[in-house]
Amino acid sequence: MLRGGTFNLLVGGPKATWPSDLAAKAIDGPWIGVDRGTLRLIDLGIQPIAVIGDFDSLQPGELQRVRRNVKDIRQSQPEKDFTDTQSAVSVAFGDYGADKLDIYGATGGRMDHFLANLFLVLEPQYKRYASQIRLIDRQNTIQFFAPGKYTIDKEADKKYLAFIPLTPIDHLSLLDEKYQLHDEPIPYPISFASNEFVGEHGTFQFDTGLLCVIQSCDTYEARHE
Amino acid sequence: MLRGGTFNLLVGGPKATWPSDLAAKAIDGPWIGVDRGTLRLIDLGIQPIAVIGDFDSLQPGELQRVRRNVKDIRQSQPEKDFTDTQSAVSVAFGDYGADKLDIYGATGGRMDHFLANLFLVLEPQYKRYASQIRLIDRQNTIQFFAPGKYTIDKEADKKYLAFIPLTPIDHLSLLDEKYQLHDEPIPYPISFASNEFVGEHGTFQFDTGLLCVIQSCDTYEARHE
Repeated sequence: MLRGGTFNLLVGGPKATWPSDLAAKAIDGPWIGVDRGTLRLIDLGIQPIAVIGDFDSLQPGELQRVRRNVKDIRQSQPEKDFTDTQSAVSVAFGDYGADKLDIYGATGGRMDHFLANLFLVLEPQYKRYASQIRLIDRQNTIQFFAPGKYTIDKEADKKYLAFIPLTPIDHLSLLDEKYQLHDEPIPYPISFASNEFVGEHGTFQFDTGLLCVIQSCDTYEARHE
Repeated sequence: MLRGGTFNLLVGGPKATWPSDLAAKAIDGPWIGVDRGTLRLIDLGIQPIAVIGDFDSLQPGELQRVRRNVKDIRQSQPEKDFTDTQSAVSVAFGDYGADKLDIYGATGGRMDHFLANLFLVLEPQYKRYASQIRLIDRQNTIQFFAPGKYTIDKEADKKYLAFIPLTPIDHLSLLDEKYQLHDEPIPYPISFASNEFVGEHGTFQFDTGLLCVIQSCDTYEARHE
């Protein structure tokens, strides 16, 4: 099997939230399809290296298209202990040895799905992959950090920077951002939204828990309304 | 000032996520506008009873429209301790004595904004309002519950039911849903997505923490793709 590198995962969220480079097929690396994401990849002309889903609901012609385009098909059970996205994350890191995993189609639409994707890294069996996973859509890049000190780079097309403890966190410091914090204890999940980089980098640190960091931008429509 | 009843709040998320009855102006009750939501209400022909925002970025003509249409204008500071949405929640419950508050435009677009709206009820000064607040978009109705035992009604246009502890929770029981839990301890935020009602009601209980419950549906596009 293929080993290492950045893998991409397409799950079933609305196409309207895709970044433009996905529709333009300009994203490098192997793809894994989940559920509805599988046919969407094939529609784009991308052959996934693996797909996971309950394919019972597909039309016979659609199922044939999946079989023609994908060698590694993992059929999931409709009533199961793990979601298809969880299984796909295990397949990417466990079976294919991915170094990083960028997940598309994970936002928008059903919020229970988005929150399952967001909170996945809090589960014991996935926590170790937290720093290797990103959720990416056309306005947001969502990353996850375990305790430590980090300097991240501003993405050219993003304006806002948000710090979002998903658990209680000790001693959160935002050291060189527009709005700073110093050794702040955070007792519950909160979204410190609409912060900004000063320059091209941002440094932060914390002692316990799990921190989500989002770089985001307004849409063209929102800016010009 | 007006007192009691259900109030509606429009915040600045993308119009594409609005439920159809909002665009059709078929939602009863007084409206409060936040930021970009203010002009959108006025564009719909709805006169907000109050608006909150940093109106510095408006064109002179837009500012005049706001002044002509709204008596209670609360100008917020660009650098402030509370977000405009937080302020609006305080205005609705504190100044106008709202019994319930339905928030629209709170999902989609920037995920740091959505998560700020979702986690607002975890903050000490807003926790008391948790059970009175809903976030509503065209696919999701999001509610919040403090510890206790509840029976909720299925919404006619929704199919899925999700239970999403936003904090650690003790003894979570889903008593009559399609997938059940019994006295489950939940140590971290998680989204138990894609559960379903059996019949028209669902009963659940838990002892500590705060539980988010989402009723959702697939979009027409997703169902017919």
